[in-house]
Amino acid sequence: MLTVTYMTPAHQACARQLQTWMQACGFDEVSIDAVGNVVGLYHGTDPEAPRLLTGSHYDTVRNGGKYDGRLGIFVPMACVQALHAQGKRLPYTLEVVGFAEEEGQRYKATFLGSGALIGAFNPAWLEQADAQGIPMRQAMQAAGYSAHLANIQALQRDASQYRGFVEVHIEQGPVLDEIDQPLGVVSGINGVMRLTGRATGVACHAGTTPMPMRHDAAAAVAELLLYVEQRALADAASPHGPSVGTVGVVQVPHGAVNVVPGVCEFTLDLRAPVNEQRDALCADVRAQALAIGQRRGVQIDIEESVRAAAAPSHPAWVARWEAAVQHVGLPVFHLPSGAGHDAMKLHEVMPQAMLFVRGGNAGISHNPLETITNDDAQLCVDAFMHLLEHA
Amino acid sequence: MLTVTYMTPAHQACARQLQTWMQACGFDEVSIDAVGNVVGLYHGTDPEAPRLLTGSHYDTVRNGGKYDGRLGIFVPMACVQALHAQGKRLPYTLEVVGFAEEEGQRYKATFLGSGALIGAFNPAWLEQADAQGIPMRQAMQAAGYSAHLANIQALQRDASQYRGFVEVHIEQGPVLDEIDQPLGVVSGINGVMRLTGRATGVACHAGTTPMPMRHDAAAAVAELLLYVEQRALADAASPHGPSVGTVGVVQVPHGAVNVVPGVCEFTLDLRAPVNEQRDALCADVRAQALAIGQRRGVQIDIEESVRAAAAPSHPAWVARWEAAVQHVGLPVFHLPSGAGHDAMKLHEVMPQAMLFVRGGNAGISHNPLETITNDDAQLCVDAFMHLLEHA
Repeated sequence: MLTVTYMTPAHQACARQLQTWMQACGFDEVSIDAVGNVVGLYHGTDPEAPRLLTGSHYDTVRNGGKYDGRLGIFVPMACVQALHAQGKRLPYTLEVVGFAEEEGQRYKATFLGSGALIGAFNPAWLEQADAQGIPMRQAMQAAGYSAHLANIQALQRDASQYRGFVEVHIEQGPVLDEIDQPLGVVSGINGVMRLTGRATGVACHAGTTPMPMRHDAAAAVAELLLYVEQRALADAASPHGPSVGTVGVVQVPHGAVNVVPGVCEFTLDLRAPVNEQRDALCADVRAQALAIGQRRGVQIDIEESVRAAAAPSHPAWVARWEAAVQHVGLPVFHLPSGAGHDAMKLHEVMPQAMLFVRGGNAGISHNPLETITNDDAQLCVDAFMHLLEHA
Repeated sequence: MLTVTYMTPAHQACARQLQTWMQACGFDEVSIDAVGNVVGLYHGTDPEAPRLLTGSHYDTVRNGGKYDGRLGIFVPMACVQALHAQGKRLPYTLEVVGFAEEEGQRYKATFLGSGALIGAFNPAWLEQADAQGIPMRQAMQAAGYSAHLANIQALQRDASQYRGFVEVHIEQGPVLDEIDQPLGVVSGINGVMRLTGRATGVACHAGTTPMPMRHDAAAAVAELLLYVEQRALADAASPHGPSVGTVGVVQVPHGAVNVVPGVCEFTLDLRAPVNEQRDALCADVRAQALAIGQRRGVQIDIEESVRAAAAPSHPAWVARWEAAVQHVGLPVFHLPSGAGHDAMKLHEVMPQAMLFVRGGNAGISHNPLETITNDDAQLCVDAFMHLLEHA
């Protein structure tokens, strides 16, 4: 079982192992920074040229897959290993970062590692306790970190010193597997909106209440769920790419077989390649909830809980990934990223673009069944090398 | 808070109180039988004439309403009180029973009291333990009953000695309140089918799985729920009367906002005035579940858990209730009973028909807000007296 959550012994062993391997690959400088990011520098011929930043996260969810995050560290490491073996230098310095925290598992501090690089470390996180009551500050200190805010804030990069950020990641979805393509160029990371909903109708006797006299909260939610599905599907033809809409939680609290549901709780997860498309989807869902509620005499309350901006890939870097993919003999296929990635954070300060690698088993992820093939990994390394040589 | 569950001290106090009041009303014989039913006899002028049986239950659900069941004991008691005060005798003996158990609250032994009168007492009930681990036998013995099966079996009535069974009951539904009518003649007690369902699709990432590639278990259930609603509504025009269909439980086990539901559990409660109509409803729902499942790649398993036959009212007794209602100056209004009642049990051996009394607060029941007006109660007593005089 692979479980590497922030600042645990497994996590620190992982950081040290990455450091050792980076050194063995031939990186010129390897360090572990104030939040646990493992940072390797492979110097370029021009020390003044803006660097290329790449990497992904080495933490995992509980009982996670071994490619999620890590693939995006190992692929550039393999390139550096090859460059170093051949005595080659790039014109610019390559900075590879193994981000210490992306998953938000032990602490609700998702994207902590990449966030620190853009000055988005939230000081309140240090006081946040895990499920065992251990504050993050204490966990960091136990692992040998100072946990001084000033040291963490000093990790913020000067974006003008970078040409951009690229990230390789396993797709974590079924698309490349379905179309039988090893690599996919990410058109952008979808904007996300998460909402919590509660429909309130009138609980009544399932035997004695005639159908026309009901205000069934679950029926209202069922209607909304099917609308979400249809409405998201209707964005398939969007020039920006498709949307997705999901009702992941549906529950009649204390529901009983012989009681017409008086309350039904649900969640909404809405994503689209650009914020405007996501917002239009959300607005339509809200309007439909209102209409369903009015027609059925059911009150539907919806509250936004999460909103993350879309991060469209930078065209110049998309073009470089396209060239790299073509270079290794593959057709160019674009797809959006439905999941969030560290590139979302770097997107806030510099151009970014991601490359997805096909996941087997229909793209299952956050699961030990997560897998890729050696052939696909080699194609990815070759493509990445091409990108490095043309960045 | 009114909670009178089987063989508790409150229950036994209730039985003794009913016995005392029946004696005060002028019943000739009052006894408490081997299962706790309180039985009052008001002798007729012809001891050989078949008796009229009436009554309802005196047990309640937890925190129940005070009219549910009891109204059907007090209304005939009020009639006997009036007959006795005037020195009047009916040509036949009237047998009024306060049934000890109908709700199945403390023990899963619904209709125990009326069941005993038709020989339907299940011997296994005696060994059944309540939530505190007390077997029914022990509870009965602690309350002073022998709990001997032979004594219980001896309660079975010879149906040939009875002209029929009538029962007055609060509607426990919103219909009479909605149409502003004090009394309703019950056309029959709906047949019931309860089913437990489970939809199994494929759990996947809400962000990375395109809409067309999903097998969303909750969406399948939502579609089925809306079908149940429409299909039950379509029976509104049935010559036998309307059906009702309810999905009371809907739940995605361990559902999460960002996971497409892989499993969704639900229940079905389907009722109709005649068995054939209920069965046709059920067959259509099952067929639709199959079609939805096949179209969505979701397996929908449905298992029947309860089936109770419809109990249409006997036309001759319906006619007597109609005459009684008209006698007190009210229009005749027929409605089915969506809930089960003791009359369902007696229906198996003798003609039966029920009269409903309007419940206030939109007919709420199994709730302290359950209520009727004094005026409606008086109309019911007057109608009952008319029925007694013309039975």
